[in-house]
Amino acid sequence: MSVVSHLAILAPGLLGGSVALAPKARGAAKTITIWARRPEVRIQLASQPWCDHVTSTPEEAVRQADLVVLAAPVERIIELAHTISPHVKEGARVTDVGSTKAALTRACAAALGNRAHFVGAHPMAGSEKTGWENGSADLFQKRVCFVTPLPSSDPAAVEDVARFWTHLGAQVTTVSPDEHDEIVAHISHLPQALATTLCTFLSQRPPAWRNVSGNGLRDTTRIAGSDATMWIEIFRNNREEVLRALRGLQTELEGFHAALANGDWLEVQARLERGKAYRDGFRP
Amino acid sequence: MSVVSHLAILAPGLLGGSVALAPKARGAAKTITIWARRPEVRIQLASQPWCDHVTSTPEEAVRQADLVVLAAPVERIIELAHTISPHVKEGARVTDVGSTKAALTRACAAALGNRAHFVGAHPMAGSEKTGWENGSADLFQKRVCFVTPLPSSDPAAVEDVARFWTHLGAQVTTVSPDEHDEIVAHISHLPQALATTLCTFLSQRPPAWRNVSGNGLRDTTRIAGSDATMWIEIFRNNREEVLRALRGLQTELEGFHAALANGDWLEVQARLERGKAYRDGFRP
Repeated sequence: MSVVSHLAILAPGLLGGSVALAPKARGAAKTITIWARRPEVRIQLASQPWCDHVTSTPEEAVRQADLVVLAAPVERIIELAHTISPHVKEGARVTDVGSTKAALTRACAAALGNRAHFVGAHPMAGSEKTGWENGSADLFQKRVCFVTPLPSSDPAAVEDVARFWTHLGAQVTTVSPDEHDEIVAHISHLPQALATTLCTFLSQRPPAWRNVSGNGLRDTTRIAGSDATMWIEIFRNNREEVLRALRGLQTELEGFHAALANGDWLEVQARLERGKAYRDGFRP
Repeated sequence: MSVVSHLAILAPGLLGGSVALAPKARGAAKTITIWARRPEVRIQLASQPWCDHVTSTPEEAVRQADLVVLAAPVERIIELAHTISPHVKEGARVTDVGSTKAALTRACAAALGNRAHFVGAHPMAGSEKTGWENGSADLFQKRVCFVTPLPSSDPAAVEDVARFWTHLGAQVTTVSPDEHDEIVAHISHLPQALATTLCTFLSQRPPAWRNVSGNGLRDTTRIAGSDATMWIEIFRNNREEVLRALRGLQTELEGFHAALANGDWLEVQARLERGKAYRDGFRP
């Protein structure tokens, strides 16, 4: 399967909407069928030029599909896997866009049984924006997309799903679902917890302070503007790993505090330099 | 003084270089004289079209100046105020770009005595970039510039300095030096401590993780790439206020940790929503 003949996208938000936009733009899918939970969204989608079919149920949407993308929030993805399981084409590939992978991957693989192949994915292309209407054909360009096979996953299905995300412009990185959750706890969920906490802390200070801030605070807190409902699910689904990362960060912050309190300027400087060296090593 | 007849800029870095570029662009100064500590920088500056005179000493630079901008790092600004004090024109206005204001403002005002008028300023237009060659005529456009008079400051001098920064495009906010240091401890120095600490923490994890991060981590940590030498001075000069802000943030972070550890999802959600409400209230 080098090009997907029939692609189904269920419950598109920002990521699912971008999956729909990107394949046609890049010739990665011939036919696109979409199901959305809310009828008003289905009506809007039906008038989009990149949408071939809109169905009123997820079951109908997947019947002809070679590749199904479950684009719902994390906790709805597992439900959807159960819903479509009896209706999905034999041998079809099923992937998703969920932000946590350990519990989800096992649950979806179990739900689909031997009938279809679930291969989890997580494109790191979220934003503080939400909704399919904010999607774009370029959203995945040069963004990392985790693909998270289980030891029991079918190698050909894993390859097909990896190829699909690559077609959309993403840089695929294959890791186990557990490793994925440990990584994103540190590089995504921890920064979210910090940005949110910096904002809740500052919200207790005079409101005028916000208006005199520079770009530093603006950038540091940008992701605090993200959708709370999405994030509560992520924290619920990755609690143990986030707690571990958070404890580590708190210890590190106590170290910074102690260096400052003790006037240990060599230590403060060493931390500033280590932080800068790490940050300077980011890809441009 | 609606337009500065003769402007002297001492020790220009990113901010001082932008002060030099901006006035001519906006007709805010007729003549610009610059002194830089390093001879090679003086040679480069002498060939810039916006630079009328370059002097080999700060004393020479200020002799004819109606307005002097001390653009050095915080701890050199006080030294410079002492150096120029016997040479500055009677009644001249002296301002600066230092990131902390309480100790600096008092020391500079004392150094200049009754001869010239020191009115501290802090344009919130820093960046992780440094050096006069990265300056731009637009750097202060719509950026906040704190002006920090003392009770003893001459009202006409305060007005002149505020008008100068306004001419450069900045939005002037007048606060006391102590209030300034409390505000920036929260909205600038605390985010820097957090970004640095997040980076030093992650630098102890597998290096490959950095390469799979999304824009969230990238933005949250951007300022960790800032110049360590500049920041060590800021932390040294604003230690008490930063410690106070840091302690408050640590308590707030313990609250987030506790809510997550207890699975108190209503509390986690409330924090996410409070953080989002605060962030959504930023000026666009």
